[in-house]
Amino acid sequence: MNLLKETISNIKPSDKEAMKKTWKHIDNLTKPLGSLGKLEEIAAKYSGITGQVFNKVSKKNIIVMCSDNGICEEGVSSADQIITEVMTNGIPEMKTGVGVLASFANAELTVVDIGVKGEITNPKVINRKVNKGTANMCKEQAMTREEAIKAIETGIEITDKLCSEGYDLFGTGEMGIGNTSTSASVISSLLEIDIDDLVGKGVGLTEEQFENKKKVLKKALEINKPNKEDVIDVLSKVGGFDIAGLCGCFLSAAKNKKAIVIDGVISCAAALCAYQLKPESKEYMFTSHKSDEKAVNYVFKHIGLEPILHLDMRLGEGSGCPLAFNVIEAALHVVNNMATFEDVGIGEESKDRLVDVREEKTK
Amino acid sequence: MNLLKETISNIKPSDKEAMKKTWKHIDNLTKPLGSLGKLEEIAAKYSGITGQVFNKVSKKNIIVMCSDNGICEEGVSSADQIITEVMTNGIPEMKTGVGVLASFANAELTVVDIGVKGEITNPKVINRKVNKGTANMCKEQAMTREEAIKAIETGIEITDKLCSEGYDLFGTGEMGIGNTSTSASVISSLLEIDIDDLVGKGVGLTEEQFENKKKVLKKALEINKPNKEDVIDVLSKVGGFDIAGLCGCFLSAAKNKKAIVIDGVISCAAALCAYQLKPESKEYMFTSHKSDEKAVNYVFKHIGLEPILHLDMRLGEGSGCPLAFNVIEAALHVVNNMATFEDVGIGEESKDRLVDVREEKTK
Repeated sequence: MNLLKETISNIKPSDKEAMKKTWKHIDNLTKPLGSLGKLEEIAAKYSGITGQVFNKVSKKNIIVMCSDNGICEEGVSSADQIITEVMTNGIPEMKTGVGVLASFANAELTVVDIGVKGEITNPKVINRKVNKGTANMCKEQAMTREEAIKAIETGIEITDKLCSEGYDLFGTGEMGIGNTSTSASVISSLLEIDIDDLVGKGVGLTEEQFENKKKVLKKALEINKPNKEDVIDVLSKVGGFDIAGLCGCFLSAAKNKKAIVIDGVISCAAALCAYQLKPESKEYMFTSHKSDEKAVNYVFKHIGLEPILHLDMRLGEGSGCPLAFNVIEAALHVVNNMATFEDVGIGEESKDRLVDVREEKTK
Repeated sequence: MNLLKETISNIKPSDKEAMKKTWKHIDNLTKPLGSLGKLEEIAAKYSGITGQVFNKVSKKNIIVMCSDNGICEEGVSSADQIITEVMTNGIPEMKTGVGVLASFANAELTVVDIGVKGEITNPKVINRKVNKGTANMCKEQAMTREEAIKAIETGIEITDKLCSEGYDLFGTGEMGIGNTSTSASVISSLLEIDIDDLVGKGVGLTEEQFENKKKVLKKALEINKPNKEDVIDVLSKVGGFDIAGLCGCFLSAAKNKKAIVIDGVISCAAALCAYQLKPESKEYMFTSHKSDEKAVNYVFKHIGLEPILHLDMRLGEGSGCPLAFNVIEAALHVVNNMATFEDVGIGEESKDRLVDVREEKTK
């Protein structure tokens, strides 16, 4: 608990002065004010994280938290639970979705067994198993409070270590059959939104299975009565080790002043937990793609973020992150390399005619 | 006219057999069916273009057509017309928006003076001036029919040459003060949509200037009465040299079986012209970002395309294309490198449980 408490108290707001300096520079680049849209916002936000106007990403890492969910007993997923184990062993080989896209973006993977039911045999997977999967939250709480804290602190420790090794841009991924169910439950609890309004079909459920999934999740919430004012309570009752671990990653990145990218609904649930524990953590978060899972929209709206890629992706694993890395790096490249009006010989007079009114951007 | 006719008649549908083979491969990759969304669609479409399942982009080029518009006399733009000349000279130095983003994506630029009013002094700009800007379409037609054809054929010639030099992925950009006005007029004419419903504020117009812009464009359409069944008529009466030139680029890319990316509203108007001249040309087109200009949505809907990046960009120049290049290359990388179910030891039985129903995707 000490590490979690210490991490939360060491998360500070990002550097607004650096952001202002960056906006001033951006507004002097050879383009109408604001015309590079979110690329400008991304670059300015990144400046707030590093405290520097000009930035370059050094090393990228996508942390993939893998764990099993007891709720699978209730038939909430169309996939066999063994898939978690098989894919966890496979992901470090860089040949699954996140691995292939990570290699395209020149990013590395850190694959963590934080609670897979079966034995993981691939030595490239970091063994930090909190337990062999969670309990069936339809019958009892998914994990103990101590386990939830241990899982969060595992995420913190792993990310702290990666930060100390020079990684400065993170992605968040997961593997765990049943984790769209736990994510929906966590988001439903924290935002007080009815399960019917936010649960998604996950991967390939029939209509009947989908109805069952909603019924099961309502029952889990009814039985456990998670306290929305207490993130740890919510995570332990209706969460998963993967969500808790990723929550730790978001907290650690914020503490270490490093940028971290949200992927799909599981990662989003974890980002929400981090945000509820310490709102300033959002100043270190970037989005990637628009998820098919409705719950994501509620979280983005609540935190105040918008996805940048509309690719209808619903794979998970962190597979949206490498694509977002490319956009973030492009944004930084613009600030570092684009000419100012003076550089290309456009004086103040002409420049003023390109100006439109815009709100204060550092808020 | 011969080159235009010949080009149109030599545009053939993309290779549906290759697309089917690619879908078969994609559906055997270690992921739930369809879960990489548009990445899968992009890769399959690209296969149709090349006729190969496995593809790699060799050389990328963004063609930037620069020209002036007589309509600027009517105060439709907040920017001084001289900006066209200044920026045309500046763009090849790779320090403006499109240049910086192109260098990030390892793409080259081909900057063409297809009708800038002033003299272009930068020798890196290709001089193919059809005329020194168009006429004021509020008083007469913007250009002659012969000029419109010459501008289209200029785009064809330039793209044909780049194809022969081994470029296989193209972007389309422009520079020309007043060209959101011509684009809106072209799109309004071809799709029979009222100016009020699709004209955008361009860059930084006041409310009064915006009202004037709409009035001016309505007058231009009223005076010229472009014939929507005749793309050349529309282009010559209310278009611009840049739009016509880019239309030629789209046609040439389709003829040469190369992929080409749409940027903002001007590029979109050009893509629409190419599509109206030869609907099969759409099978070679890819989108980049969602434009702030409403007209773009109508064109995408009409052609049947959707933007993939939501970045609130409104710079033009082709600046959205390099970001789309990255996504396209990521999609190809997935097909080339991702493991199949057999590779990671998941048998037919487990695989079947990951399957959801999906429509035929080659249609």
